Amino acid sequence: MTTVRIFVTYKPSVFDPQGSTIKDALHTLGHNDVTNVQVGKFFDVTIDEQEEPVEEAVKKMADQLLVNFNMETYSYQVLEEAK
Amino acid sequence: MTTVRIFVTYKPSVFDPQGSTIKDALHTLGHNDVTNVQVGKFFDVTIDEQEEPVEEAVKKMADQLLVNFNMETYSYQVLEEAK
Repeated sequence: MTTVRIFVTYKPSVFDPQGSTIKDALHTLGHNDVTNVQVGKFFDVTIDEQEEPVEEAVKKMADQLLVNFNMETYSYQVLEEAK
Repeated sequence: MTTVRIFVTYKPSVFDPQGSTIKDALHTLGHNDVTNVQVGKFFDVTIDEQEEPVEEAVKKMADQLLVNFNMETYSYQVLEEAK
C-alpha cells in the first residue's frame, strides 16, 4: 500500500487571485513579513497492490483527471511506501 | 526568507465528498487499485525577515485566517529555510 500526495498549482505564468487576496489579508492581520502566497490543491491517493510504478500511475491520473495542463502543473511526494 | 507549505484538510471525522467522487472517477478510468482519495488545500507562504519562530507565525495565520477549525485541521512543512 502506497500513499502519494499529488500537488496541483497554477503555472507560475498564471495569476493566482486567491493567493494574492490571502497575502493582502495576512498583511491586514499584521503579518507584514509575508511576501508571497501561492494557493494549491493536493490529493492524497492511496494505492493498494499496484502493478505499475508509482510515477507512471501518478502521471496517468494527472493526465486523465486531476490536472488542467493549460493552467496548472503538478508534483508529488510519496507519503507511505509499499511494504 | 522562509517558504512554508501549510496543508489544510478535512478532519478525519468529516466526510470528503470531493475525494469520494475522485476515487470513483479514478476507478472508472481503470485505476481500480486506488482505495482512498483525500482532497486538501495548501498555501505556500513566503516569509521575509520574520521576527517570530516559523511555528508561531504559522499557528497565528491558521487561527486567524486559513483554517476552519470546526471542520478542518492543518499541518505544515518548511520548504526553504532562512539563510
